[in-house]
Amino acid sequence: MAHTKLSDAEIANRLESLRGWSVVQGKLHRDLSFDTFVDAFGFMARVALVAEAMNHHPEWQNVYNRVAVDLSTHDAGGITELDFALAARIDELAAR
Amino acid sequence: MAHTKLSDAEIANRLESLRGWSVVQGKLHRDLSFDTFVDAFGFMARVALVAEAMNHHPEWQNVYNRVAVDLSTHDAGGITELDFALAARIDELAAR
Repeated sequence: MAHTKLSDAEIANRLESLRGWSVVQGKLHRDLSFDTFVDAFGFMARVALVAEAMNHHPEWQNVYNRVAVDLSTHDAGGITELDFALAARIDELAAR
Repeated sequence: MAHTKLSDAEIANRLESLRGWSVVQGKLHRDLSFDTFVDAFGFMARVALVAEAMNHHPEWQNVYNRVAVDLSTHDAGGITELDFALAARIDELAAR
């Protein structure tokens, strides 16, 4: 898995394969909304397990049924393939 | 459980019985730090179960091993006894 910071053009290209993600303050950002807190935190628990297995963790905030996720790769100083890989997994988990 | 907004004096008085909490932007705030993401998210999972049982939920954000918690009671437009009750439970769970 590459950890090289992607260019703006590479990021724009990869964003087309995701849904609901944009670049906010240099990070991949997605806002998600669920029916209840149980649903929101259930989603977070699924993402937490996947993130730990990838050894790549989101920055995120939760307010009741809403979760905001920001992804970037600290070591690379920007957005990398690793962030897009985690974003794709998050989309899979959010779609359930 | 009272849901009446507490006065500044009542809040200051109750803050003395907690550790690490302050009022930030009108909410009870505490920053917590753990050894790892697993520890941080394990803490969040414990708090989530307690919060759901209380039907009172935190606003919180997590970045790797750090968790920032904000508590307020939306219906009351401020900080209530319910927030201090949840803060006390959070302190118990954080101390484990």
